Amino acid sequence: MLVASGRMKVFVAAVLFAEGLPKDDAAKVAELMVAADLLGADGHGVFRLPRYVARLRAGGFNPRPDIRVVSRRGASALIDGDNGFGHLVMDSAVTLAEDIARDQGVAWVGARMSNHAGAGGVHALRLAEAGLVGIYLAVGNANHMAPWGGIELLLSTNPIAIAVPGQSEPVLLDMATTVAAYGKVKLAADRGESMPEGWMIDREGNPLTDPTNVEGGSLMPIGGPKGFGLALMFGFLAGTLNGAAFGSDVIDFNADDDSATNTGQVLIAFDPSAFGSLAAFRAQVDAVRREMTGSALRPGFDEIRLPGERALGLRRARLQDGIQLPNGLRGRLNGLAAEHGIDPL
Amino acid sequence: MLVASGRMKVFVAAVLFAEGLPKDDAAKVAELMVAADLLGADGHGVFRLPRYVARLRAGGFNPRPDIRVVSRRGASALIDGDNGFGHLVMDSAVTLAEDIARDQGVAWVGARMSNHAGAGGVHALRLAEAGLVGIYLAVGNANHMAPWGGIELLLSTNPIAIAVPGQSEPVLLDMATTVAAYGKVKLAADRGESMPEGWMIDREGNPLTDPTNVEGGSLMPIGGPKGFGLALMFGFLAGTLNGAAFGSDVIDFNADDDSATNTGQVLIAFDPSAFGSLAAFRAQVDAVRREMTGSALRPGFDEIRLPGERALGLRRARLQDGIQLPNGLRGRLNGLAAEHGIDPL
Repeated sequence: MLVASGRMKVFVAAVLFAEGLPKDDAAKVAELMVAADLLGADGHGVFRLPRYVARLRAGGFNPRPDIRVVSRRGASALIDGDNGFGHLVMDSAVTLAEDIARDQGVAWVGARMSNHAGAGGVHALRLAEAGLVGIYLAVGNANHMAPWGGIELLLSTNPIAIAVPGQSEPVLLDMATTVAAYGKVKLAADRGESMPEGWMIDREGNPLTDPTNVEGGSLMPIGGPKGFGLALMFGFLAGTLNGAAFGSDVIDFNADDDSATNTGQVLIAFDPSAFGSLAAFRAQVDAVRREMTGSALRPGFDEIRLPGERALGLRRARLQDGIQLPNGLRGRLNGLAAEHGIDPL
Repeated sequence: MLVASGRMKVFVAAVLFAEGLPKDDAAKVAELMVAADLLGADGHGVFRLPRYVARLRAGGFNPRPDIRVVSRRGASALIDGDNGFGHLVMDSAVTLAEDIARDQGVAWVGARMSNHAGAGGVHALRLAEAGLVGIYLAVGNANHMAPWGGIELLLSTNPIAIAVPGQSEPVLLDMATTVAAYGKVKLAADRGESMPEGWMIDREGNPLTDPTNVEGGSLMPIGGPKGFGLALMFGFLAGTLNGAAFGSDVIDFNADDDSATNTGQVLIAFDPSAFGSLAAFRAQVDAVRREMTGSALRPGFDEIRLPGERALGLRRARLQDGIQLPNGLRGRLNGLAAEHGIDPL
């Protein structure tokens, strides 16, 4: 079933408003959740609504947070999210980072006491669509990875998103530092598929290929110790530096509904016009894009895609055709709606 | 043969002075070159001196550059390196980034018309040793990687270095975005060893394992398309954004001695004291370090090491015992020295 993105936003906003969020906040969270679905990050969009509602009801989220800047020096700011929705915290961060970067060239905006903010690419892309470079780092919301050489799950998939403006469209990288994000493991389990070797190992270091039997197993970082290094450093920058959780104090957001996660994120914005003409930068990004996509192909490939091409193409299609809503999810969403007398999808 | 690091610095500085660098510049480049050797980045230290001298003599380097800030807005600055040694450009960038970050919380300092600057970790580490977070990105000095799905060599190993201050010592990640840096391929060739599958592919996409026969082959990015994405975005940030080379305009520094490389780098510094107590941050970095290194081990591993542990351990040892100088390199260095009547090593 296809649902128009505008209809989906209205629906999500109505549910969140009924669950106690102020009207404007509900609309903003809905907009940013649907933005993830539009970009094809289906596991980070409306799919999360039932979990968010469970947390709201258990007291794990603050529905009416006082999101405020608690430290400010020059081009840097630290936001305390007061345990509100991560989307709202990142919305404040994007707005502030854009303001600061236009003035100072660069902005570094950290967040603590935040929460899951959906797809990091959504926030980095907003900066790129405003003509800025956006970099987003986060501590993920459940530890599924061991340090390199160890077996205890002390790290998450700590993702990075980087977006730069282009002439035709932005280039948008949004990736976990693990070979596979944990959502892909759950998806394989749902579909009854096995995992390729290289995604996970068990506590003895053997490859795990059965996605229904991964208890205690570790996701594998990209490039072995390199991916571990990236996940660790992103954890220091997005978590430790902001006074947010990183390491064993990370709350498993999917297993615990009532503890504050103290999620940490950082957003860095840079204004290319500080170094020259934005138009010239956009043109040069596209010149590099044409070089890359114009390379002769490796056998077995039929095209070269830049990061974000698939996501931005999906967004164009989904804005026009609507967002595919699987039946199981539709049933869960309509169940929530029925409790509040909201029209079903 | 072991050479004391102080002796090595004096030697390198004498050669560079004899080749036309001002005395202070020669000493600074020597210090930063030897700093790479001390950290175990042997392929980025004094090993490079013969190539640097060849470029100086061919007019490829400007021995007396006017390194200056050409754009400045708030917490951001763009440096034009005037085709001088990358070490001098990064020395200016580190000094400026530190000043700006103490004042503004964050600094973003880009560089164009720079050159090979040795090991990126050296520059990031200087910031961490000053109590700041340091992030360094660069466009590498020769294209050895194809875009994901392609076969044309349009990207370098575009590295990232990130350093954070700790209590006991900094944590320092310094890595290429490829599975193996190109230097490891050359080292395997020197040693008559084969390469493991996964380092390189040929133009048909087959694994390359003979390091003496890699013409036209591509290094493999970490995590497949993810590593390509990182290399690409780092190229935009360190190259395109600064008006520096990225893509087909990258000069192969090892094959061309007389063209300016227009190398691009970017250094981001952040002052943890802008968000709270630096001492508390240092302590928390060490708490996370203890958690990670204290994890139960995966079979086959006898320890868990954080990024930079090996490098900082080597530096302690080499400061005390000296730096190992292979005979071949020693011969080449002494050959240069003899031309100027400098005492041999």
